[in-house]
Amino acid sequence: MQNLIFTNDVDSALNRLTAGSRHNMTVFIADVNTARFALGKERLIVIPDGDTGKSLATVCRVWDSLEQFGATRHSLVINMGGGMVTDLGGFAAATFKRGMRFINVPTTLLAAVDAAVGGKTGFNYNGLKNEIGAFAPASDVIISTRYFDTLPVQEMKSGFAEVIKHAMLSDRGEFMRLLEHDFDAPIDHDDLLERLRSSVQVKRDIVARDPNEQGERKALNLGHTIGHAFEALAMQRGKPVPHGYAVAWGLVTEAVLSHLILKFPSNDVHLLGNFVRDNYRDFPFTCDDYDQLLTLMRHDKKSHDGEISCTLLASIGDYHINQTLTPGDVTAALDILRDHLGL
Amino acid sequence: MQNLIFTNDVDSALNRLTAGSRHNMTVFIADVNTARFALGKERLIVIPDGDTGKSLATVCRVWDSLEQFGATRHSLVINMGGGMVTDLGGFAAATFKRGMRFINVPTTLLAAVDAAVGGKTGFNYNGLKNEIGAFAPASDVIISTRYFDTLPVQEMKSGFAEVIKHAMLSDRGEFMRLLEHDFDAPIDHDDLLERLRSSVQVKRDIVARDPNEQGERKALNLGHTIGHAFEALAMQRGKPVPHGYAVAWGLVTEAVLSHLILKFPSNDVHLLGNFVRDNYRDFPFTCDDYDQLLTLMRHDKKSHDGEISCTLLASIGDYHINQTLTPGDVTAALDILRDHLGL
Repeated sequence: MQNLIFTNDVDSALNRLTAGSRHNMTVFIADVNTARFALGKERLIVIPDGDTGKSLATVCRVWDSLEQFGATRHSLVINMGGGMVTDLGGFAAATFKRGMRFINVPTTLLAAVDAAVGGKTGFNYNGLKNEIGAFAPASDVIISTRYFDTLPVQEMKSGFAEVIKHAMLSDRGEFMRLLEHDFDAPIDHDDLLERLRSSVQVKRDIVARDPNEQGERKALNLGHTIGHAFEALAMQRGKPVPHGYAVAWGLVTEAVLSHLILKFPSNDVHLLGNFVRDNYRDFPFTCDDYDQLLTLMRHDKKSHDGEISCTLLASIGDYHINQTLTPGDVTAALDILRDHLGL
Repeated sequence: MQNLIFTNDVDSALNRLTAGSRHNMTVFIADVNTARFALGKERLIVIPDGDTGKSLATVCRVWDSLEQFGATRHSLVINMGGGMVTDLGGFAAATFKRGMRFINVPTTLLAAVDAAVGGKTGFNYNGLKNEIGAFAPASDVIISTRYFDTLPVQEMKSGFAEVIKHAMLSDRGEFMRLLEHDFDAPIDHDDLLERLRSSVQVKRDIVARDPNEQGERKALNLGHTIGHAFEALAMQRGKPVPHGYAVAWGLVTEAVLSHLILKFPSNDVHLLGNFVRDNYRDFPFTCDDYDQLLTLMRHDKKSHDGEISCTLLASIGDYHINQTLTPGDVTAALDILRDHLGL
């Protein structure tokens, strides 16, 4: 089981973890933005930031650097960065000499509540997101809010969509608490760390029951079947949207679908829709895009034989995986999403 | 737990396995020699044979072909070939979309008793053998002798060294039976399939107790710490030796070391030494090579801080991992090996 540590004293936590380990060498991996958090470390591999650098060429650079440092399977990798660093650094570590131990120190909200936890690693290949990868959990994940003060608000919102998703899968009280969040206020580190603790626990419990996504783990795709289509179409048009924005729009759409198909309470659809309208504006699609969005949903990595399948809710916390959607359901829900966003 | 099927009716076994599976597509992977065993299959990826083709470029070709076929994580890969095919095809399958199910059908003795079983996958990188890889077991392995009639005798001998190794880790009766083997006689398929069943069971039991090589699995390195050094030095000189020949010489050397350090019976050293002298000739090294061999042993993937460590036997079946060797021990044993081989 993956060891999760919630603390804002990251250095002490890292020191405790590495002092108790029998590794022969520690190598840090960071990107050009997060390298400053690993300054002064003896061995540091700096990789590009952003999705275009999440490539096989970058994986090879990491393998080459590990070799140059003389790393062995008894060495330790520490990934310090956002989801790109933990995904790609995790894959490189998991495959170098058939696998080294690695620790994730997520520096963004999105990575803290999603990418860094649960063992999905990988990189983009032939233009497809996370096309190559492995299920390989970090031995430990140190989750803190200390890197968030300098995060752009758009990054905070992007991660927050996953926090809302976890609450929707588990606990209406937490869901209501989250909808009070004010992105303009300074970060309350103690409170946010508690929110992260609840949020990550939801993911951890689901992953523990289904580490390789054979079944229940699909619950974590809530908002993502539709959200990925938004993200992919925006990317194809050269105008990418932040992952969490796509997820936020996907959550509203799938909440609408949940209402249509499983009688999810309309009041909760409205509460969520209002929060997303207030915080995740600039939805870039019109009804002319529905056909392309449907095609992308049919080609999702988790789809099967061209059917659109997603996770829906009967109520907050009561999720149902493998719900098949008709194109008519989806276009109706997209219309209602656009209404909610005031478009 | 990996499903092992021992049969010489491979087609029926494959049909039973695939009929009971919910995959949406089957893709065969074979090399230029074994492609004939998969003729007529709708989807076949043919990769180069030999160690030089065991490269990242070949892995990419497999990923690209899987994409072109439209394979998903619900598709099934069948690796049909020697260890190169099962290692590389297994890695490609284990990482494509974070992992597809794959079945191994080993077509060489070496692959049947070693590479295809137990979950090690990978490829060579920057000139280092199996430098990148994953522990990812085939769901099923179909073990047969039906492909062996056309195997060169050198290939049979190479695989047989691993069969002897497994007997040395488990059962003196089996060890004695194996030393009767006559490589010039036609293959007795029923008997050999029984030998494979015993042999693979030894590996399977050890792997089940330690899948990721944290401890006991190192027992399977018997003969390999020294053997890998022989193999690597021969490769560096552009005159490669078959893997199993290097293992056979390594087994004798480590049996000698076992005698020197753990009082392994000298009679068994002699029996093994005679069999190896009669069947694995052409040892290409002299005492001038000892320094280079020692350096290679210190850099073995399983070595730690430059110490030479290997598995030794107190008697057949009584193995002890993590035995540290001094250079003096090793050179003494290499001298005795060369005596045994009549050099």
